[in-house]
Amino acid sequence: MGVLTSTRSAAARRTTRTVRIGLDIGGTKVDGVAVGPSGEVLASVRRPTPHGVTAVVGAATAVVAGLVDDLVTTGPVELSGIGIGIPGLVDPGAGTVRNAVNLGFGPEPVDLAGLVARGVGGVPVSVENDVNATTLGAFSLLGDAGDLALLSLGTGLAAGIVVDGRLVRGAGGAAGEIGHLALDPTGHPCNCGQRGCLETLAAGAALQRDWPHGDEGRSADHLFAAAAAGDPAAVTVLERWSSGVALAVRALALTVDPARIVLAGGVTAVGEPLLRSVSAALDQQARGSVFLRGLALADRVSLLPADRPAAAIGAAAAVGPV
Amino acid sequence: MGVLTSTRSAAARRTTRTVRIGLDIGGTKVDGVAVGPSGEVLASVRRPTPHGVTAVVGAATAVVAGLVDDLVTTGPVELSGIGIGIPGLVDPGAGTVRNAVNLGFGPEPVDLAGLVARGVGGVPVSVENDVNATTLGAFSLLGDAGDLALLSLGTGLAAGIVVDGRLVRGAGGAAGEIGHLALDPTGHPCNCGQRGCLETLAAGAALQRDWPHGDEGRSADHLFAAAAAGDPAAVTVLERWSSGVALAVRALALTVDPARIVLAGGVTAVGEPLLRSVSAALDQQARGSVFLRGLALADRVSLLPADRPAAAIGAAAAVGPV
Repeated sequence: MGVLTSTRSAAARRTTRTVRIGLDIGGTKVDGVAVGPSGEVLASVRRPTPHGVTAVVGAATAVVAGLVDDLVTTGPVELSGIGIGIPGLVDPGAGTVRNAVNLGFGPEPVDLAGLVARGVGGVPVSVENDVNATTLGAFSLLGDAGDLALLSLGTGLAAGIVVDGRLVRGAGGAAGEIGHLALDPTGHPCNCGQRGCLETLAAGAALQRDWPHGDEGRSADHLFAAAAAGDPAAVTVLERWSSGVALAVRALALTVDPARIVLAGGVTAVGEPLLRSVSAALDQQARGSVFLRGLALADRVSLLPADRPAAAIGAAAAVGPV
Repeated sequence: MGVLTSTRSAAARRTTRTVRIGLDIGGTKVDGVAVGPSGEVLASVRRPTPHGVTAVVGAATAVVAGLVDDLVTTGPVELSGIGIGIPGLVDPGAGTVRNAVNLGFGPEPVDLAGLVARGVGGVPVSVENDVNATTLGAFSLLGDAGDLALLSLGTGLAAGIVVDGRLVRGAGGAAGEIGHLALDPTGHPCNCGQRGCLETLAAGAALQRDWPHGDEGRSADHLFAAAAAGDPAAVTVLERWSSGVALAVRALALTVDPARIVLAGGVTAVGEPLLRSVSAALDQQARGSVFLRGLALADRVSLLPADRPAAAIGAAAAVGPV
């Protein structure tokens, strides 16, 4: 919690600002933001993500240093805490991560909070899983207009849930794991050991499995373009996939019934056409049911703003108020 | 909010106690409790439920009067509020109820809070749906040991959810409506207009449909007895039904992941054999999945204590602290 100053500069005589730092450690990049007392982003830094625990910790501390270097040019700052969002199995209480496979974290828990804290001179560090961090970021970016769920359509499928302004974590670390609702006992096998999970219908990997075209990681763009061009096979795959996403939206609506359901994750880079396709599936499914129509789910669904580092902002929010 | 005294008695000289009253207006009976500042039940009254709005309001005010009569024999009391739990579509903000079909409430909203308040001299009255009232009652009876969901297996199937000690109400009145998660597009038609809803698999009505034996409303007893006696058809129906209940438990676990999932509703009068059957289905479904086994759902499921008027106690809790 040391006060970091740019020594002897005019700036050093200004009032010390208290800031939080949020880091989003993803498979390809580490996004860092420094956030002021009102949630305003004061600085941001991005670096590529290296592989392996030591290198990742090094990149994280380098991003923190970069943010501080940037901030101190305009006056002294005090760091109240650092929040990290990261994929894998996170224990927020212990500050540990395991099975962040793409980053080279194995099955043994890594004390990420401790390692980063030592790297930055003892500032308190908290760790949150990436979906929860993104959910807090969406809540921060979109404002407190009622409960919110974020539906993350990455390789897997999971949700983050905010009720009464607070993240729902659950008793067994399974809150938001709607991707493993098993809908079809005869469906595709899922990594979790079940069959026909929602994730096997509606995650990014499901889309790629059913439409293995286009450049690597760009199956969704290719599928949407082909469907828009009238390719009947693409239309069929897209409708089935969107219907799966709509089922996930309904699962959230029929449990916590959030005012807003925000679509996020790699696949949503497609943008508005994806939102239109999911909304159409929601309307289609509600056609025969006054009950479902009354929920007006298509009106509650939106895309996560693509131009802001939501996960890093959310990781900073997870630190708590300055 | 008047102070009600038993005039000139020795009791009248004692300290005035502030109490809340909770009413559970069910299809067959009105249960009323008076609850003290620490949540202790000071008095209880039960009357049969009559049919029609006017008669129901009359019964509710009579139960309130009965409770007050009982309380004033031991000293003066002040009523801080009355909470009502009732089936049908409840708007807690407006205090109205509609479509409480078994009670004779039609599709037009009935201002139940206003009618009862006038009947009892202006004490504030709040109204909650019966599942939510029972959920608050379970939370009150079982203590604050983490988030809780109550799975109500009545004619229909719905859940109540408490997160961070507060009821999750949802933005569209659909929180906990997991009975309308549509799992099988080729399944039984549901009242909601969809097909294959969880309710068509696992509600009390589903059990009665698949096992139309025994006295009216006692299909569950008959089914469990027949299955225990080794009737293969009964075993099949019971396993299928328990598997549906287990799916409902999993839907709650994979969204809010509550520490405790409490089974309630008419069917649960069967008692321990029902809990054992649902637990066995949970274990069976988790057999192939390390992920599901890790959730230890069978350990989190329990029966609502049958010997306490949970819905009335919860309705009183909905009034808020004394």
